[in-house]
Amino acid sequence: MIILKGAEAAAQIQREVEERLKALGGYVPTLAIVRVGEKPDDLSYERGALSRMKKFGLRAESHAWPADISMEEFGERFRRISEDGDVDGILLLRPLPPQLDEREIERMIDPGKDLDGISPENVAKVFLGDRDGFAPCTAEAVIRILKTYQVPMEGKRAVIVGRSPVVGRPLAMLFLQEHATVTVCHTRTRDLERECREADILVSAAGKAGMIGGNHVREGAVAVDVGINVTPEGKLCGDMDFEAVSGKAAMATPVPGGVGAVTTAVLAEHLVRAAERRKEQGRV
Amino acid sequence: MIILKGAEAAAQIQREVEERLKALGGYVPTLAIVRVGEKPDDLSYERGALSRMKKFGLRAESHAWPADISMEEFGERFRRISEDGDVDGILLLRPLPPQLDEREIERMIDPGKDLDGISPENVAKVFLGDRDGFAPCTAEAVIRILKTYQVPMEGKRAVIVGRSPVVGRPLAMLFLQEHATVTVCHTRTRDLERECREADILVSAAGKAGMIGGNHVREGAVAVDVGINVTPEGKLCGDMDFEAVSGKAAMATPVPGGVGAVTTAVLAEHLVRAAERRKEQGRV
Repeated sequence: MIILKGAEAAAQIQREVEERLKALGGYVPTLAIVRVGEKPDDLSYERGALSRMKKFGLRAESHAWPADISMEEFGERFRRISEDGDVDGILLLRPLPPQLDEREIERMIDPGKDLDGISPENVAKVFLGDRDGFAPCTAEAVIRILKTYQVPMEGKRAVIVGRSPVVGRPLAMLFLQEHATVTVCHTRTRDLERECREADILVSAAGKAGMIGGNHVREGAVAVDVGINVTPEGKLCGDMDFEAVSGKAAMATPVPGGVGAVTTAVLAEHLVRAAERRKEQGRV
Repeated sequence: MIILKGAEAAAQIQREVEERLKALGGYVPTLAIVRVGEKPDDLSYERGALSRMKKFGLRAESHAWPADISMEEFGERFRRISEDGDVDGILLLRPLPPQLDEREIERMIDPGKDLDGISPENVAKVFLGDRDGFAPCTAEAVIRILKTYQVPMEGKRAVIVGRSPVVGRPLAMLFLQEHATVTVCHTRTRDLERECREADILVSAAGKAGMIGGNHVREGAVAVDVGINVTPEGKLCGDMDFEAVSGKAAMATPVPGGVGAVTTAVLAEHLVRAAERRKEQGRV
């Protein structure tokens, strides 16, 4: 069985980014990370993103705001960043505390800087298959890791477990762009094992440790685990029982070291793309 | 076999609309139909929409513009309608001639009046499962006809043939809202017959006469035909070979008289919804 390593995909993206930075002639794109409060998940993702940007030769700045920030204050600060000529791209760590209206915030962000595809404009583009839009980084990371290992997608059956707006749904659209036949399963799906066994490419994005076992995987399938869960012992694990799945699959991603290791590399690629466009438009 | 009649669903929608019109206290919502050129398809759809609005007690006005209208002129006129306080909803007949930039036009329409869900705002809402958004009328008509005949969707396998932005993709999202397990097939799908035979609910929106036959349908399935094609003899027909399909399916929609007969009723319901919201906002 081949282990699909996120580091491989990230290294490939790094080479692309370095090429394109050269073409930008010394301009160093800047990412603004916006974090509200001090949630451990957010802090860990932020650290990962900051170190990735540095490694790729990109600039990043972190904006940490108090957990009890009012919607008014948030809106004022967030708009200022969105309009800041020195900022090429924005990553907003979510979910946000309840006093902040995410729907309204999604409409505040400049779609050209919206690297994680939260604005209606980018959501619509991804939905319509317009490659010009920014897809959520995690969904795109799945496609990137498959492409790195040259997994054919055209005409293949891709089965996604999970229908969330940040992974399952956009990933379904990205698979359609790759000409895969796509099935989306979820908590109400009647016979999940059977649905999953139909997959040439099985992606789990359900957020439930160990929910995908050997019975879910057809001999020779490709298994991609987007889940990031923490065991009672504090260990990171995915949605898949890796040992059981490896016994069947031809290729599988580990957790950690799989999709999660590609996400911030995709973010970096989006940042460079945003900067390239701003340059074309004479905005930098 | 039960024939799923569009007229049944339309009559149910009419009763709802009449109730809600009463609650609007005499206010009669107005639809603006925008047509460019004189394409027979557009003229026929326009006639259907006008007579449906009249039948439901709604107002409709038709704006017919020359096929060679410039983008500038179109934009000016279209914005005027979108901003017109007397217009509650808009239907733009598409596709438009090549000199008109559909992407730009989708961004001009007031999302609150965008009854056929073409604005990024509504596309994003449908994608995210936000029932507040307007879905494309044809996609919603499929769900309406199934609900009229109380076809259970939760946990069922819905298979859609066709991945277009106006039917296949939004319909996939609407089925997810109904908690169906959804598969989207298309021209690159490897074994279409097999995929279709897995369906509890099979929907064809491919626009190819006779492409779905008896081998595509499982015994007892529900078959919904969204295709509207014209035979060489000038007769209307769907994507399904109705006779062959009826031999297998438990329920099936005819063409004409199926989904097509529900679409303008959904449009009318959207118009009333738009007017209700404008009233809530004190705009009428």
